[in-house]
Amino acid sequence: MSEAHDAVDVIRTKRDGGRLSASQIDWVVDAYTRGAVADEQMSALAMAVLLRGMDREEVARWTAAMIASGRRLDFSGLGRPTADKHSTGGVGDKVTLPLAPLVAACGVAVPQLSGRGLGHTGGTLDKLESVPGWRATLTHEEVLTQLRDVGAVVCAASDDLAPADRKLYALRDVTGTVEAIPLIASSIMSKKIAEGTGALVLDVKVGSGAFMKSVDDARELARTMVALGEDAGVRTVALLTAMDRPLGRTAGNALEVRESVEVLAGGGPADVVELTVTLAREMLAAAGVDGVDPVDRLRDGSAMDAWRRMLAAQGGDPDAPLPTARETHQVLAPADGVLTALDAYAVGVAAWRLGAGRARKEDPVQAGAGVEWHAVPGEAVRGGQPLLTLHTDEPARFDRALEALQGAYLVAPEGARPDLLPLVVERVAP
Amino acid sequence: MSEAHDAVDVIRTKRDGGRLSASQIDWVVDAYTRGAVADEQMSALAMAVLLRGMDREEVARWTAAMIASGRRLDFSGLGRPTADKHSTGGVGDKVTLPLAPLVAACGVAVPQLSGRGLGHTGGTLDKLESVPGWRATLTHEEVLTQLRDVGAVVCAASDDLAPADRKLYALRDVTGTVEAIPLIASSIMSKKIAEGTGALVLDVKVGSGAFMKSVDDARELARTMVALGEDAGVRTVALLTAMDRPLGRTAGNALEVRESVEVLAGGGPADVVELTVTLAREMLAAAGVDGVDPVDRLRDGSAMDAWRRMLAAQGGDPDAPLPTARETHQVLAPADGVLTALDAYAVGVAAWRLGAGRARKEDPVQAGAGVEWHAVPGEAVRGGQPLLTLHTDEPARFDRALEALQGAYLVAPEGARPDLLPLVVERVAP
Repeated sequence: MSEAHDAVDVIRTKRDGGRLSASQIDWVVDAYTRGAVADEQMSALAMAVLLRGMDREEVARWTAAMIASGRRLDFSGLGRPTADKHSTGGVGDKVTLPLAPLVAACGVAVPQLSGRGLGHTGGTLDKLESVPGWRATLTHEEVLTQLRDVGAVVCAASDDLAPADRKLYALRDVTGTVEAIPLIASSIMSKKIAEGTGALVLDVKVGSGAFMKSVDDARELARTMVALGEDAGVRTVALLTAMDRPLGRTAGNALEVRESVEVLAGGGPADVVELTVTLAREMLAAAGVDGVDPVDRLRDGSAMDAWRRMLAAQGGDPDAPLPTARETHQVLAPADGVLTALDAYAVGVAAWRLGAGRARKEDPVQAGAGVEWHAVPGEAVRGGQPLLTLHTDEPARFDRALEALQGAYLVAPEGARPDLLPLVVERVAP
Repeated sequence: MSEAHDAVDVIRTKRDGGRLSASQIDWVVDAYTRGAVADEQMSALAMAVLLRGMDREEVARWTAAMIASGRRLDFSGLGRPTADKHSTGGVGDKVTLPLAPLVAACGVAVPQLSGRGLGHTGGTLDKLESVPGWRATLTHEEVLTQLRDVGAVVCAASDDLAPADRKLYALRDVTGTVEAIPLIASSIMSKKIAEGTGALVLDVKVGSGAFMKSVDDARELARTMVALGEDAGVRTVALLTAMDRPLGRTAGNALEVRESVEVLAGGGPADVVELTVTLAREMLAAAGVDGVDPVDRLRDGSAMDAWRRMLAAQGGDPDAPLPTARETHQVLAPADGVLTALDAYAVGVAAWRLGAGRARKEDPVQAGAGVEWHAVPGEAVRGGQPLLTLHTDEPARFDRALEALQGAYLVAPEGARPDLLPLVVERVAP
């Protein structure tokens, strides 16, 4: 039991730029979870944290208090190392799909307990739900069995995992307090630590399509999360990766599953392959496994095999045709030249408006909706060739998607070079 | 009708240091009053305002929006100038009681719509309710009749006066967002402007017993409020006055009524008399009345006469004996010397703990409870003489009151001089 405090005193401490004590943090997180601290008190505190910050010790304690609000899983009896990857969210970021079976095929179990997409970035569960029959909800026993048999699970996190975070996240979403690095870091890390993974690789996206628009902010978030992982005994590494343009060549649910299958089959867009392999190597290293090259596991078909078994274990039919949208609309290249820009945020908003994403968590998503781009920045295009294909079941959605894409791409005269972030911008290790 | 906005966008604007537009302010205040903006959103916005501030135009608009949430009274048909006084709250500050009838006796009507005390400062209505029979609640018609017949009304503000402020104040109280100067200023001024007074004198208290601990903060609050008054067409002047020691010689409900009657009878503590007369002169000047000296109205008994009629008009019996507490406890001077300090905050907390004040607005108060001091800073005392008398109906309360008074007074060797603020620290005019 934590010592009792007064909510207004805790808020004032942070408001006036002070440090919250361990006892204040334990109390306020617990009292908020039980309803003894009201939403309006927690939102005032969240705003004070956003504007005043928290130091490393405060964030670690806050994270620990959120973990303590629920159950902490433990896979140490599995007899195999575990590693997970978390992405802060980007447009066209389907990397979890090929990555989880790839790492499983390399001998490291991947227990990924995931959330749903909200806003312009897609959710991994939404993508996998476009596979006919696949279900996101598993019992803890099913998770354990699947980790043992297949080596990879991607499923919905149960309600007893960091319930304080669930409640706080919903509050932050409606009170303009999402963008607080200590709160973002503790939200992500409380779930990942409670999930029980032994090692964790963070993919912190940077650029217009990411939550963090600047490298400095992304680095601060990465460092905060890596420190939290280390403090909690989870071997954690972060990569800052590019999200100034979208990843791969598609954004949408079934569209991204298709691209992931291409990667598992040894093809697929170069950037998706590169990022998948890079993250797989980081996960293996963090899990203490060496001597295995993920590229071999893509080539020899064992990653694809793990993918098929992973889907089947959750009721999915890996051979069933993927859903497609009823309507498509093409955007043509305005002239001959070089595509020098394709804005990730605009593409994400367009895919969202076409029906691939949701505005509220109760909204349904369309499996077939999304955006496909036929050139990536740096490639030559010919005037009149298809540049983008928009997919949706409801043609009334094209107009607002096209509106989002206004000014989002640029075709410059031959010889022009796009100004892009490198795919992997930086590595942050403890 | 105001243009629709999104609550999160409004919060983010202020959070990121921006200016709220007139349309954003109109919308958010109105939507909050109707319940379309939730408490947790408004508290996050209030915290952002506290930490980021508001400029003169924003505060003026915010105040106007709070006034527009209810009814605005108008006494222009009264045929007499009107003036009111508002104190930001201090310990032993009973000045409204002699001041309202004194100014009425000088020919200026005083329509004071007042609130209740909360915390360590007393409420004017609580004090007057210690007069047997007196009632705080009047209809608008009764207020008008009394202003015409007596010239002074002190009563409870009706629920339709700036209802947005009522709701927002209750929220700020539990979310650590009371101490935001723009919100304090707009809260006070929205009620005073809606009340319909033609002129307003603000008594902004400074020191340990006041809300504003420093002269700089008090000056900023005073300037903000004077500007708001001017912008709304109310002639407004502010005095910064001392609250490092308590005012007069008593803090409590009936105790302060007794002291006020002494002042009206031509006696009473020098500081209460001086402040009452100074504020009366400011009110007459602001109301455009000259050639009348309030000192004469105290001397000739006309202020006392107005007091008696003011009480009687609201059911009070000016001749009935005032309630007294059942128990008293004396604190003796520790040695011969000079009283060099008597801390206003400590005295206020002691009076509150003795039963004179309330912690929550539903709590009852004791009419007879409070603190009486037999010397004021600068006066000589003899060791063993009564220094303080504590009054309460419940002797169990003495201990916690004495605890609050630990270190609150200082008796120094003869010749020592207290370091005090002047009674009137500064005058702030438009």
